[in-house]
Amino acid sequence: RYFHFCKLPGRVKGIRLLRFTSVVIIVLLLVAGALTALLPSIKDDKMPNSRREPKTQSQSALDAFTLIMQTYNRTDLLLKLLNHYQAIPHLHKVIVVWNNIGEKIPEEMWNSLGPHPVPVVFKVQTVNRMRNRLQNFPELETKAVLMMDDDTLVSAHDLTFAFSVWQQFPEQIVGFVPRKHISTPSGVYSYGSFELQSPGFGNGDQYSMVLIGAAFFHSGYLEDFQRQSEAVYALIDETQNCDDIAMNFLVAKHTGKPSGVFVKPVDIRNLEKDTNSGYSGMWHRAEHLLQRSYCVNKLVNIYDGMPLKYSNIMISQFGFPNYANHKNKM
Amino acid sequence: RYFHFCKLPGRVKGIRLLRFTSVVIIVLLLVAGALTALLPSIKDDKMPNSRREPKTQSQSALDAFTLIMQTYNRTDLLLKLLNHYQAIPHLHKVIVVWNNIGEKIPEEMWNSLGPHPVPVVFKVQTVNRMRNRLQNFPELETKAVLMMDDDTLVSAHDLTFAFSVWQQFPEQIVGFVPRKHISTPSGVYSYGSFELQSPGFGNGDQYSMVLIGAAFFHSGYLEDFQRQSEAVYALIDETQNCDDIAMNFLVAKHTGKPSGVFVKPVDIRNLEKDTNSGYSGMWHRAEHLLQRSYCVNKLVNIYDGMPLKYSNIMISQFGFPNYANHKNKM
Repeated sequence: RYFHFCKLPGRVKGIRLLRFTSVVIIVLLLVAGALTALLPSIKDDKMPNSRREPKTQSQSALDAFTLIMQTYNRTDLLLKLLNHYQAIPHLHKVIVVWNNIGEKIPEEMWNSLGPHPVPVVFKVQTVNRMRNRLQNFPELETKAVLMMDDDTLVSAHDLTFAFSVWQQFPEQIVGFVPRKHISTPSGVYSYGSFELQSPGFGNGDQYSMVLIGAAFFHSGYLEDFQRQSEAVYALIDETQNCDDIAMNFLVAKHTGKPSGVFVKPVDIRNLEKDTNSGYSGMWHRAEHLLQRSYCVNKLVNIYDGMPLKYSNIMISQFGFPNYANHKNKM
Repeated sequence: RYFHFCKLPGRVKGIRLLRFTSVVIIVLLLVAGALTALLPSIKDDKMPNSRREPKTQSQSALDAFTLIMQTYNRTDLLLKLLNHYQAIPHLHKVIVVWNNIGEKIPEEMWNSLGPHPVPVVFKVQTVNRMRNRLQNFPELETKAVLMMDDDTLVSAHDLTFAFSVWQQFPEQIVGFVPRKHISTPSGVYSYGSFELQSPGFGNGDQYSMVLIGAAFFHSGYLEDFQRQSEAVYALIDETQNCDDIAMNFLVAKHTGKPSGVFVKPVDIRNLEKDTNSGYSGMWHRAEHLLQRSYCVNKLVNIYDGMPLKYSNIMISQFGFPNYANHKNKM
């Protein structure tokens, strides 16, 4: 008589069964939740902020880019460049950032000379700021942004190729103007171009920035830029300079990689001398380069470290301009 | 009297509790298993088979590569090349695949002229096969393999740079000799080099293969090659050719990307004429190129499709050989 059997009425059995299953279900949910949290972040997470990407993106907008050009005091050059750029393949739209405060935009004349291949939007600014071009413009519908200075002409071939390169490196700045920082024994950084030697770096050279005055980058970085610290904005406004250096810091910090990929241009021109305004770019100011070294050091303080990384990769188009450009001259 | 309470002896309660918990545990294991199977494959999964990677890998082996050179009938050239390659930075070991069947290896002489910077292992083969070099050699301790034909000299600068490029594209073949396939209206493919025009492809050229006779690739691909179909081996043995094309198919299929990344060499030389054996490479055979077109079409049948993808990216070292090599000549 070790065992005492007990017949239970159905309802009690039911209740117990119910409790049993509910416990199992709850445990399942907990486990599922835990494991889901453990999922490795997939590639797209490394993309710059993509929340801003319009849900309803036209097919064309997916394989296209938006040209953002900031202009100040040389409308004649702007119009010349607009005529060049409006015919570039894969161009979706042009956004002109109008820094000529109080001056009328040439929209009427532009329209009177239409039709034009793509829409051109003039964004009238209230203050002449270097960083106006880094706004998260609502008119922007493409993932890819091509940013160009208003005195620089890059050939359609170079742009078409560079865009195809950007599509393979969408989280980096893909452009035509490489620059670098140099560490010095004093711990102070210096900014420069290829003429600045890298002590201790053997054969060849390196770059750690690609300027955004002639480059493709992901539009998500424009939203990320809106969340930069006030100190960064203050630095750019104080110098009216360095917005491109700040973008390289942003991208390098975001990716943990070199911020830029340098594409060697076949045909890039500075048209500054073609303007009648007589105005020449800010980079002619005596203090321009010193300011940029100053900005690098300031940004290192703000970031509490140096996120920029060096690269020595230079990309050219296979078989262009000459069909055997890959043959060595031995 | 709707409720009938029943006191159960502890043992029965125990058994029921036991059954309850065991059920929960089993369910948990099932769920865990299921969810684990759902984990998205992380980047490393895209790496070629990495099971083979030695667990106990010396630090040096992680930032180093192994040179695999297959040799046939030109030992004088081999020794000249061994003297060149043994001094290359990051070289961990040299594996010589000895296809001179029945012929004594020059180990004695090699050792008598030591010491040498890195170990050289002679792998004596029993059959002279093109694909002997694609074995999963147990002496191989590095992730990176540098495979070189026994008549090709590439400068130390080119190799050091290309290795740094491979470290950024470890799942692709990073090398100095690009080739391509061409589709024809008949649906038959043709194999060729840059002199072969790509109909309908506008400016510039494209490549869809990087030959492994002067290239870096992941050692895991040598293990993957061991699992190729018999038809692939038969094709290579029948032609004594095309092992490099087969590797490009393997890598393209594995990655879904272009199989290769082309690095423009500054100094690459064919030393064939320097041999006293008078033996000249198989690629001089009249049928060589026709065979390779034949192989492409055969492999497309075996793969039931064309996995090769085109690329038009050419990588050079920034600032080398001339420190302003990135400046355009405008």
